[in-house]
Amino acid sequence: MTTRQAKDSVRRATSRRRFLRDGSALVGGALAGSLAGGEAMAAETSADNLPPNVPEWMKSPGDPMGSQLYGTPSPFEKNVVKNIPKNLKQYISASGRTPLQDLDGIITPNGLFYERHHGGVPTIDPAQHRLMLHGLVDRPLIFTMDDIRRFPSQSRIHFLECSGNPAYTKPYGKTASDLVGLLSCAEWTGVSLKLVLQEAGLQAGAKWVIAEGADAAALTRSVPIEKCLDDAMLVYSQNGERLRPQQGYPLRLLLPGFEGNMNVKWLRRLRVAAEPTYSREETSKYTDLMVDGTAREFTFYMEAKSIITRPSGGQRLDAPGFREISGIAWSGHGKIKQVDVSVDGGKSWQEAQLQEPVLTRALTRFRLPWHWDGKTAVIQSRATDETGYVQPTLAELLGVRGLNSFYHNNAIWPWLVAANGEVTNAAA
Amino acid sequence: MTTRQAKDSVRRATSRRRFLRDGSALVGGALAGSLAGGEAMAAETSADNLPPNVPEWMKSPGDPMGSQLYGTPSPFEKNVVKNIPKNLKQYISASGRTPLQDLDGIITPNGLFYERHHGGVPTIDPAQHRLMLHGLVDRPLIFTMDDIRRFPSQSRIHFLECSGNPAYTKPYGKTASDLVGLLSCAEWTGVSLKLVLQEAGLQAGAKWVIAEGADAAALTRSVPIEKCLDDAMLVYSQNGERLRPQQGYPLRLLLPGFEGNMNVKWLRRLRVAAEPTYSREETSKYTDLMVDGTAREFTFYMEAKSIITRPSGGQRLDAPGFREISGIAWSGHGKIKQVDVSVDGGKSWQEAQLQEPVLTRALTRFRLPWHWDGKTAVIQSRATDETGYVQPTLAELLGVRGLNSFYHNNAIWPWLVAANGEVTNAAA
Repeated sequence: MTTRQAKDSVRRATSRRRFLRDGSALVGGALAGSLAGGEAMAAETSADNLPPNVPEWMKSPGDPMGSQLYGTPSPFEKNVVKNIPKNLKQYISASGRTPLQDLDGIITPNGLFYERHHGGVPTIDPAQHRLMLHGLVDRPLIFTMDDIRRFPSQSRIHFLECSGNPAYTKPYGKTASDLVGLLSCAEWTGVSLKLVLQEAGLQAGAKWVIAEGADAAALTRSVPIEKCLDDAMLVYSQNGERLRPQQGYPLRLLLPGFEGNMNVKWLRRLRVAAEPTYSREETSKYTDLMVDGTAREFTFYMEAKSIITRPSGGQRLDAPGFREISGIAWSGHGKIKQVDVSVDGGKSWQEAQLQEPVLTRALTRFRLPWHWDGKTAVIQSRATDETGYVQPTLAELLGVRGLNSFYHNNAIWPWLVAANGEVTNAAA
Repeated sequence: MTTRQAKDSVRRATSRRRFLRDGSALVGGALAGSLAGGEAMAAETSADNLPPNVPEWMKSPGDPMGSQLYGTPSPFEKNVVKNIPKNLKQYISASGRTPLQDLDGIITPNGLFYERHHGGVPTIDPAQHRLMLHGLVDRPLIFTMDDIRRFPSQSRIHFLECSGNPAYTKPYGKTASDLVGLLSCAEWTGVSLKLVLQEAGLQAGAKWVIAEGADAAALTRSVPIEKCLDDAMLVYSQNGERLRPQQGYPLRLLLPGFEGNMNVKWLRRLRVAAEPTYSREETSKYTDLMVDGTAREFTFYMEAKSIITRPSGGQRLDAPGFREISGIAWSGHGKIKQVDVSVDGGKSWQEAQLQEPVLTRALTRFRLPWHWDGKTAVIQSRATDETGYVQPTLAELLGVRGLNSFYHNNAIWPWLVAANGEVTNAAA
């Protein structure tokens, strides 16, 4: 295919008018097929007649209003839960994943937000919780949660992602959740960290802020002052309600676009310093050994990445015909500019539609109409962010980072659609 | 105050630079006050020392990861639940409210989404559920949920609001939730209704679509074809996961900006017709008696409205000083263009900051810095939407609609801040 032909092909596939015409026909075929194998059509006899198949649940009143003061999902969704590894030696320092392949849109419901803990989940009384701000400041301060809540607030939709998502060298999983389920997105509310630092007054030489959590691990990370004075926040709410215990209740440091563990949960201390603290979590962990023997450390930003969640590993296409390919893309460096999708193993790419609003450092939902012809296909997505950075292939990533790297694997991930419709990890 | 002085005052109060300078000083005063009455400042003795007050929850590991496969809020948030009226005669046709005064941002977590049912909440097996599309169409169709899921999807953040929020003539409540808690906002995912109607093929004379729910009330509403071909959707997901049973699991009609009951839950039938059906829910209910004896019917749109949620009724300011005034605004006609806030009983108004992104037919969070001087104050907000429509006072609304009206009360709502800091409903 020439470049011009490829461009024309992309234009055709992404033209809305063209899509509706084609899509409608394809869907029609698919639906006709599924109906033919199923029930007869109910004919209407008068405007007020119900269709004949009045289901059982219409014949008597349902559950009374308010039977749940805090609602839960339908019992038919009982398998949509966090993806927890089985048979770990311990669950105190461990992680649980969001079931990305079962979700739509960009917001992760709080009950399915991914978890990663280093000393378990503390149960903190917010009335007893304190945040201490000290070090290179004019006025060291201790804040109650009421103090924090009195600051001017802001709300932002941002993703959070573990830096080992997926781990670089481990056997790759079966589902989208197995691969990159240490990823979620929420609307966060809190106060600008810059405002809180200004309250204490930064002194000359203030280059880092050392953040400490109130968990049993006292998880500690060093944050460059530039990030603290940019879009960093102290957050207390998530999707409207207060943070969940697993997400740092009652207070969390939010560093949009930075690797998850730096977004210190159960935040109890901020020390302003001239140097980073070289804590366990920035030396023995969250640092990568390069080919030349040096350590790649302080790898803050989560680079541009994407994955197709539907269809994805573990799912099955029951018949050829129209399928929407849908997935999520994100970048720690800002907005997603473009997502391309290939359905032929990377030989050609088509530009996907991005769901508005496209927000900075938030998940972005992408979609592409696809007619599956019933043959084996390898499908994959490739994100480009607003800096122009393009998500690499695994081969490209290995070429740069070598085989000893563990964190920050943002490679393109291909799914194999077999002729029987089963979808599996094409790289496993 | 002259118009020019008023404009200058607004400009000063909303200037970011000015705000930070003033706000910071105010916050400093407030914090110094709260610290003086509380604990001593912890002095740092070395970079690695913990502050002295190491809390109990840091001394042993917390709850193991994954102790909840589907997470729930902190036990310290147990009072943040749906606001359910006590001692109703029955709870089958009733409503439960979102605790707006406890929430931040614009997303309502699914567990706290408001409920309004007319025949209880059916428990529907999605594998058994069907949607029938018939009437003035070329090809009547029955869809399974799998069929619906195969259509191209879209995701949108929209509010939903009951038309009786608050009821016009009832005694007014104490809290923001009592007043307008039949209001929530979520990211919805589903398929464009237009696409589904095109699949069946609309015939000449198709002017209305009659939607019917699969609950015991078979709730039925007539929707103008213009709305069905505009932004109407058939939705199956809410904030990422599948709809909650209380929100119509597995399928709901979503009519952005239209009164809540028209967004038919548990959707099982769409009949395309030349005339509306004049169902119970559009004759005896959801219709208002005007002063001239005529009925105001088919009042689809929720008009522009806003409310201050913090501080609001039932809350208490513990000391004078800096306070952020925060609230939500929304309009069924599109985006919120402006929100003005008065802290002097409506004599003067200041323009509030709107949190980006401002989305069409979605909640919009507004904020205004305020220094409470410790004296009695009446605070209120006034929304203007992109059509130029301005939220009216209750007196203005009564002047137009008279005293027999029940639904679509979008009046400005004032809160009284007493000198002791207690906040109550100023119009009760």
